[in-house]
Amino acid sequence: MSATWGNRFKVTVFGESHGAAIGVVIDGVPAGIELDMQAIERDMLRRSAKGKEGLATARREEDKAEIVSGYFNNRTTGTPLTAIIRNGDTRSGDYARTASLMRPGHSDYGYYVKSGGFNDYRGGGHSSGRLTAPLVFAGAVAKQILADRGVKIGAHILCVADVKDAAFDALAPQLDAVDNNGMLDSSLWEQVKSRVEAAAAEGDSVGGVIECAICGLPAGAGEPLFDSVESAISHMMFSVPAVKGIQFGLGYAMCGMKGSEVNDSFFYDGDSVATRTNNNGGVLGGITTGMPVIFNVAIKPTASIFKEQDTIDVSKHCDARLALHGRHDPCIVLRAVPVIEAAAAIAVCDLTV
Amino acid sequence: MSATWGNRFKVTVFGESHGAAIGVVIDGVPAGIELDMQAIERDMLRRSAKGKEGLATARREEDKAEIVSGYFNNRTTGTPLTAIIRNGDTRSGDYARTASLMRPGHSDYGYYVKSGGFNDYRGGGHSSGRLTAPLVFAGAVAKQILADRGVKIGAHILCVADVKDAAFDALAPQLDAVDNNGMLDSSLWEQVKSRVEAAAAEGDSVGGVIECAICGLPAGAGEPLFDSVESAISHMMFSVPAVKGIQFGLGYAMCGMKGSEVNDSFFYDGDSVATRTNNNGGVLGGITTGMPVIFNVAIKPTASIFKEQDTIDVSKHCDARLALHGRHDPCIVLRAVPVIEAAAAIAVCDLTV
Amino acid sequence: MSATWGNRFKVTVFGESHGAAIGVVIDGVPAGIELDMQAIERDMLRRSAKGKEGLATARREEDKAEIVSGYFNNRTTGTPLTAIIRNGDTRSGDYARTASLMRPGHSDYGYYVKSGGFNDYRGGGHSSGRLTAPLVFAGAVAKQILADRGVKIGAHILCVADVKDAAFDALAPQLDAVDNNGMLDSSLWEQVKSRVEAAAAEGDSVGGVIECAICGLPAGAGEPLFDSVESAISHMMFSVPAVKGIQFGLGYAMCGMKGSEVNDSFFYDGDSVATRTNNNGGVLGGITTGMPVIFNVAIKPTASIFKEQDTIDVSKHCDARLALHGRHDPCIVLRAVPVIEAAAAIAVCDLTV
Amino acid sequence: MSATWGNRFKVTVFGESHGAAIGVVIDGVPAGIELDMQAIERDMLRRSAKGKEGLATARREEDKAEIVSGYFNNRTTGTPLTAIIRNGDTRSGDYARTASLMRPGHSDYGYYVKSGGFNDYRGGGHSSGRLTAPLVFAGAVAKQILADRGVKIGAHILCVADVKDAAFDALAPQLDAVDNNGMLDSSLWEQVKSRVEAAAAEGDSVGGVIECAICGLPAGAGEPLFDSVESAISHMMFSVPAVKGIQFGLGYAMCGMKGSEVNDSFFYDGDSVATRTNNNGGVLGGITTGMPVIFNVAIKPTASIFKEQDTIDVSKHCDARLALHGRHDPCIVLRAVPVIEAAAAIAVCDLTV
Repeated sequence: MSATWGNRFKVTVFGESHGAAIGVVIDGVPAGIELDMQAIERDMLRRSAKGKEGLATARREEDKAEIVSGYFNNRTTGTPLTAIIRNGDTRSGDYARTASLMRPGHSDYGYYVKSGGFNDYRGGGHSSGRLTAPLVFAGAVAKQILADRGVKIGAHILCVADVKDAAFDALAPQLDAVDNNGMLDSSLWEQVKSRVEAAAAEGDSVGGVIECAICGLPAGAGEPLFDSVESAISHMMFSVPAVKGIQFGLGYAMCGMKGSEVNDSFFYDGDSVATRTNNNGGVLGGITTGMPVIFNVAIKPTASIFKEQDTIDVSKHCDARLALHGRHDPCIVLRAVPVIEAAAAIAVCDLTV
Repeated sequence: MSATWGNRFKVTVFGESHGAAIGVVIDGVPAGIELDMQAIERDMLRRSAKGKEGLATARREEDKAEIVSGYFNNRTTGTPLTAIIRNGDTRSGDYARTASLMRPGHSDYGYYVKSGGFNDYRGGGHSSGRLTAPLVFAGAVAKQILADRGVKIGAHILCVADVKDAAFDALAPQLDAVDNNGMLDSSLWEQVKSRVEAAAAEGDSVGGVIECAICGLPAGAGEPLFDSVESAISHMMFSVPAVKGIQFGLGYAMCGMKGSEVNDSFFYDGDSVATRTNNNGGVLGGITTGMPVIFNVAIKPTASIFKEQDTIDVSKHCDARLALHGRHDPCIVLRAVPVIEAAAAIAVCDLTV
Repeated sequence: MSATWGNRFKVTVFGESHGAAIGVVIDGVPAGIELDMQAIERDMLRRSAKGKEGLATARREEDKAEIVSGYFNNRTTGTPLTAIIRNGDTRSGDYARTASLMRPGHSDYGYYVKSGGFNDYRGGGHSSGRLTAPLVFAGAVAKQILADRGVKIGAHILCVADVKDAAFDALAPQLDAVDNNGMLDSSLWEQVKSRVEAAAAEGDSVGGVIECAICGLPAGAGEPLFDSVESAISHMMFSVPAVKGIQFGLGYAMCGMKGSEVNDSFFYDGDSVATRTNNNGGVLGGITTGMPVIFNVAIKPTASIFKEQDTIDVSKHCDARLALHGRHDPCIVLRAVPVIEAAAAIAVCDLTV
Repeated sequence: MSATWGNRFKVTVFGESHGAAIGVVIDGVPAGIELDMQAIERDMLRRSAKGKEGLATARREEDKAEIVSGYFNNRTTGTPLTAIIRNGDTRSGDYARTASLMRPGHSDYGYYVKSGGFNDYRGGGHSSGRLTAPLVFAGAVAKQILADRGVKIGAHILCVADVKDAAFDALAPQLDAVDNNGMLDSSLWEQVKSRVEAAAAEGDSVGGVIECAICGLPAGAGEPLFDSVESAISHMMFSVPAVKGIQFGLGYAMCGMKGSEVNDSFFYDGDSVATRTNNNGGVLGGITTGMPVIFNVAIKPTASIFKEQDTIDVSKHCDARLALHGRHDPCIVLRAVPVIEAAAAIAVCDLTV
């Protein structure tokens, strides 16, 4: 509890990494929308390990989402839209040996305690990054709903290890300039790749930052208190495994600045209202200003590494050493871009649809 | 919508800065608890401007919370616990003149659009930082419930402008070492004060960072997805006005590190399980590890400054200049420490009670 | 838990019969509505014991609702609308003597167990019928919101003891024909009165049925499953103390009829769609048909009677006799008409606003 | 919205009668429970048309529920438990011809308006009684959880048309005495059968009443206001298609009785508290008394009949005649017994687990 999120665009995610299937039920999809199935598949593919040889897990999931409800004659019906993704290429045996060894950096131990030892430990079970696949499906649907209302969402890799990409222009984020690798500055891709490959070669992993922009949201969305735009977005972001921080606009950098430096001045841009800067990332007092909503999230280095680590064996009740095998991403950041977009789309859809 | 938050410890906050009263209804308080009223008043006082002459607004609120329900014969009854705080010392006239001038850095414009112009603009109305008073009341109650279960929460000023306090020991946060000003290192207080006074003297403001630790939470709290500990806490943090960022454990610093550097090794500390480091801030995959939960939040410089600013006049539909009068804090950080503690206590109470 | 109900029109009720105050927070009121305070007071007065001498409790509450938030310049602001009603004329001493004697027909014993003995036993505490006062306030607000959308709600006494009033015309309920006593057929009032007075004279009580109609709801409101119109309305109705049954349209009478007798035929009434009969009470498969929504609720005889009764003493842990004193209604039905209207208005507002 | 119900035992139902699949996600199942799959199948079979030749639809669904998540090594994991039921034996062609003809007694017209004409009209789509199959699955799980806590739920046919079965003993409901046909008095089954067959022979349908008892619930469950036991149960009951009324205990009969006649006297039955009668059906002021919770629900005659009916054609915008074909139950009551049990189990599980 709770695998359901949202009030108006309610998303329920289910499944385990190595169970029969994972999936999502979306309640609150308006009726009559013709889904662009290719766009959904494109996002699913961006999240998948395909085409990322050497940079991502060798597990080859089809990630084929079957829509089993809420869609009729090529249109949404307004009833719960359900997609099921069968799990395949599972090598559960990889995990059986290490079931009682708590992987450092993972939820294994917390989940073990929480479930009284009844958790599905294979690949992290319900905690697995694989659960972001149904999230991406839901996000792809949310993006289409939002696009119909003029709201566009895009994310890119802001940094991986010490390689820093350019940031979005806070007044006019260049969503269309993000390349297929998730970079604004394509020339940096080789450096990103080499950092990830170097870490992988050592059996280690690296982290990074993803920046996301939401364009076209009118002023007045969100609430001053518990349903602030930042509350809703951060709630969803921290539902994505490995996210450890979030900041809106200039975020932490504002702490060292003066009020006169960070306040964004309003002006009339013809008939519409805008701000001359967008230091606050499009949200003031929890409510959108009508400027692009901009934030970034910190993604920690993949917890699954191949270096031998100290840990505990909960069945033998003693300290132990753990050498992971299996197939893992040396850097989650590369595949997380569409996940962050999806999580943002779900949050915004819930606030505004 | 929504002024209500939580599933098990449900908090409803109401009121406007210059209305008749503000208050809170807490649903889900266990029956039979004898509240320590002095502890509640102490937290209310820490949040208030009292005793912070020169560092905080000159508005002198009594902030006297009257409990009108859910309390009988000095014990909670298990029914909704309601506290009402009458507003006093309001100089609403300060705001009438500038009602149509949207204060930069505030939610004025967003709220104006959202409410169709029917918002109570006086002092930000429902968006005012004053609404953190009922939050502190609810948090003080939550803290007592948690204390009975061995959970203790404390926060301190990690930095103001360029003055940096020591950080909590991530393995054993020194909650009791925080002084009355909210500092771990008391010797830095004079520097903090001088930065705030200097900003105030210029009619400007400064921001900072508050660090918070939750000790005694057992392993297994929280959920892998939408009710991750980080989701719940961040949701509440971004409900606090002026918070623009949050990070758990090493947070953003992890992005430049290797997996082998940030993974926290488990070991048996006698019969109990612990980790040798606590880089992940006590949460893995959304679930507590049993180590202290540690995070910090970025608080922007107060939006209300006395320097003249560019803005718009929504009634005249033109650009304008705004020189604020009234009474404002040159640095919210100083008063926000108990608010962050309260927000954390509410989130944790909802996850675990 | 939970004293909060609703998704879009969220109502939080707090207070105890003999505590300092009772009240309600309504979240989800649209901004810009000028409330008709006299209409609110009128409903509050209908619920109160005033003008019902001999037919209702002698407790004389002012039931003066003070709006403390969400209302500015005579308009709703869209933020939580809060009303507080101070309790007065409490004779708590009436209850102290009998605190450990569980009143038959009341929630005393269940509440005693639930709260571990910490409940406010005075007059039923949070379970008291007095809590319907804030409900009526919220309902009066809901009615005004609905009236602006062309939806009108009215209820009347369908029977008291063996006196049966005429029923609403299911195709065109005569909302305006209900008289001040809550009767469609005013000539029956003297009979109603005599039944209630006769019961009161014996120290006993009588029950009855209230019929309610919601006119002007367009087709398409509600959901097929968990948010069926009937689910929402019945949920609210059973939140009203003493309600023990509800039926929509012909209700139980349909069980003895054929499908061909109860199905309502659709036809085009000019451009609009209607049904020739309204046996289903305006709801089919959980969704409105556009015809009036009609239902009635069974209200049991007041549990508080003056005849001596068998019960238990939970402090002495033995059987006991209880002779109630205090002030009680010999028939709740008479005062419950505006409560049923209010509960219906809240449910409909939540489904449609 | 909303296809999700519950706070602690959260049930999400999805699917359409003639779509690819229907199913349910249950969030809040405790970890470590070994499900009795045969008991689940037994309830699914009781709901299905199998073995009810001549009394139920000829549609032959396998109703085979595949559990795809939340179950590992024959135990629940505490994560969302998901079951999927593939639709088979669909003759969607039966419905295509009549897509624009609104079936009287069904939600067709309301749903048509609600969805802007994009609803899946085949067999009622999401409104179909077929959606009670996943509900029965969830209820079967809930029953097992409750049984572990000593709570047992059973229902029986109280009447069909004019044939009246015996009622449960309110003090000690004979749950085990209910026979395979759902009757307490087995001798009446032939009469029930003949009434249903007679209606079927005329192309018509009949309704009835189902009585349900919940035994073993301790005192103190439920809340005085919005989460009263009656609110929760009635909410779920009206989520079941064709339910048009509900009454607890003596229900409507109480309206004609005196308070002294319906109040249930408490007494000490050894160490435990009981009432000498159970006229209030085990609930007082919304809270359980510890006595069996007893209620019954009115189920209208099946809306799908074969007699020609007046209706409208929404595509031609004119009045029309409709002669239904397809396969339908002449009396839903016979198959609804396990559905009512399931709905009750879900409500009680949510209130108490």
